[in-house]
Amino acid sequence: MFDTIVIGAGYAGLVLAERLASQQNEQVLVIEQRRHIGGNAYDRFDTNGVLIHEYGPHIFHTRSKEVWDYLSLFTNWHYYEHKVLAKVDGKEVPIPFNLNTIEEVFTPALAHRMQQKLVDLLGYNVKVPILKLKEQDDEDLKFLANYVYEKVFLNYTLKQWGIGPEELDPTVTARVPVYISRDDRYFQDEYQGLPKFGYTEMFKAMSDHPNIHMLMNTRYQDIMDIGEEGNRLFGQFFEGKIIYTGMIDELFGFCFGELPYRSLRFEYDTYDTEYKQSVGQLNSPNSYDFTRITEFKHLTGQQHPKTTLAREYPQAYRSGENTAYYPIIAEENQKRYKQYKKRAATLHNVHLVGRLAEYKYYNMDAVVATALKLYAKLQHK
Amino acid sequence: MFDTIVIGAGYAGLVLAERLASQQNEQVLVIEQRRHIGGNAYDRFDTNGVLIHEYGPHIFHTRSKEVWDYLSLFTNWHYYEHKVLAKVDGKEVPIPFNLNTIEEVFTPALAHRMQQKLVDLLGYNVKVPILKLKEQDDEDLKFLANYVYEKVFLNYTLKQWGIGPEELDPTVTARVPVYISRDDRYFQDEYQGLPKFGYTEMFKAMSDHPNIHMLMNTRYQDIMDIGEEGNRLFGQFFEGKIIYTGMIDELFGFCFGELPYRSLRFEYDTYDTEYKQSVGQLNSPNSYDFTRITEFKHLTGQQHPKTTLAREYPQAYRSGENTAYYPIIAEENQKRYKQYKKRAATLHNVHLVGRLAEYKYYNMDAVVATALKLYAKLQHK
Repeated sequence: MFDTIVIGAGYAGLVLAERLASQQNEQVLVIEQRRHIGGNAYDRFDTNGVLIHEYGPHIFHTRSKEVWDYLSLFTNWHYYEHKVLAKVDGKEVPIPFNLNTIEEVFTPALAHRMQQKLVDLLGYNVKVPILKLKEQDDEDLKFLANYVYEKVFLNYTLKQWGIGPEELDPTVTARVPVYISRDDRYFQDEYQGLPKFGYTEMFKAMSDHPNIHMLMNTRYQDIMDIGEEGNRLFGQFFEGKIIYTGMIDELFGFCFGELPYRSLRFEYDTYDTEYKQSVGQLNSPNSYDFTRITEFKHLTGQQHPKTTLAREYPQAYRSGENTAYYPIIAEENQKRYKQYKKRAATLHNVHLVGRLAEYKYYNMDAVVATALKLYAKLQHK
Repeated sequence: MFDTIVIGAGYAGLVLAERLASQQNEQVLVIEQRRHIGGNAYDRFDTNGVLIHEYGPHIFHTRSKEVWDYLSLFTNWHYYEHKVLAKVDGKEVPIPFNLNTIEEVFTPALAHRMQQKLVDLLGYNVKVPILKLKEQDDEDLKFLANYVYEKVFLNYTLKQWGIGPEELDPTVTARVPVYISRDDRYFQDEYQGLPKFGYTEMFKAMSDHPNIHMLMNTRYQDIMDIGEEGNRLFGQFFEGKIIYTGMIDELFGFCFGELPYRSLRFEYDTYDTEYKQSVGQLNSPNSYDFTRITEFKHLTGQQHPKTTLAREYPQAYRSGENTAYYPIIAEENQKRYKQYKKRAATLHNVHLVGRLAEYKYYNMDAVVATALKLYAKLQHK
């Protein structure tokens, strides 16, 4: 009946389902525990008719022409380049902290000196992780590094992750650099934008194939068994492929303990005005418990007389109570993940892919690339 | 695994699924061939953010407190009473044709006489089917009847049904009466309104139960066998109930021939203005090929700077090509339906309910009432 079962209807699952159905003419059953497709990239109109991102702001950006072209099969784009301001000392300044930010924050003479030294010592158009900058010998740069560390980095990181920066993997903390450039954009990738009519419409187009069957509001455990002795669907042996995009620890009943995630909570406000902020994202590194405020209309390009904003409160992830957002990339957790990964290798015909299944802090483009790679690999088997 | 399989996620199917899941703690699998729930009552935001009814205007109205209270479990209401104008002799006049319409169309003396005679001969606050009115002896009323017949009824009916009024069942043609009243509302039911945030949100709330599993984009035939020898799901005997809300002729491979339906095609226009019409529905009985223009914001109550309207073109239903809307209630078709109905009685544990399964021109409230009745019946078994 089905050639492939895909567990999870987020990016990873839908890319595989789409490729296998449309290119290999496979019959695919997609099982999704939520009531909607698209995973955490799901967007929807709120009750005011404003398009919002239910699980926080998603800005697509990639350097991969392959990924961009692939998604462009299913959507046109709203060409948007993300800009972020952070409230520092009562002023809204560009983030990542760059040469412009330096001018806005410091006196002209000091700013000029810092800019000069940054360019001379580290080069122009370079992103320097803040923890790297702190290691510089120069007094001005040390001062700058400490300033950025204290005003932009430390408390934001503490709020965001619930642990100090030293406990996090450098790949995570490197996401907050000082950028030696006048480029105020948050990303510098060649391809940036949002699906013209929203992510959900793009995902609908991806899954709109007669070979793709969507079983929603269903936990795979309720109808399947996946294990070393083989896999079953509705009690019968299932010989086909399984693409698993859920949590890897859940697949094995958390036998080695839970892999921790960071979660988020959102508070929404709608205003009877066209725009409330000058940019799509306003960071609050030091004040309040939320990390940032997103004004979705800047991102989506929607024309509407009202505007909806979301304040974002990081919080601990608790299984069954809230939503898993970010794997917490830290040494101990990686060790635990590897135990699960080893066990996953003993399964028959089960392929793990995606943020939850690989316990990786994937960006959207990266998970598409990984899914396409897995698809290619499956063809060579 | 599943106690009940519901085929079709429209009103009939979702009422049964909801009751069985929430009241009987049954595990329910709902199979739906479309990508969305709600059947033809499905609504969605268009690309301008205007809430539209994808399958034509749906205005909920009922005299049944039970039905109203039941749906109110899943939605609040936008209290809306439908008003319709028809373009007659270049003027927009209230429909159903009533005492006010008479004043707008005829000279004062003639109008006054007609009003008097209608009230005297037929009573106040009475709806008289136009075909009934034509049988009146009085000259003025005959004139009125012929006028309404020609200007409002005949061509509209021909467009709507593709056949003449004499071929249609009186219950269908009675939907266009002359109303002896000054009440300009299209419906007089005690309870009228639209789900506050749309039909789709109401259906989502109905199906939002952990016992309800939705298999979308899947034809039941692809995974089930339903027949006199028993029913199978994924090749295994299925002992539970089946609620079938699809077309009854399809269930038996059209063995007695196809039951005909009328279909519709919509053309949408969005304007950069708040409102385009003074009411939600403007009928075009004699001009153009469309029957009516719906301006959704009047119905939904949405506040938006733009407005979307749909022109409605009736057309023949062709299986696999367009959507079935209205069963064509005519003698020959009823005979054919009865053949199918007889055959359906031989099935095991299969219950047919809804517009398509019963080949009935149900209003929304009537199908809810019927589904609730079936639910009650199932409890007494």
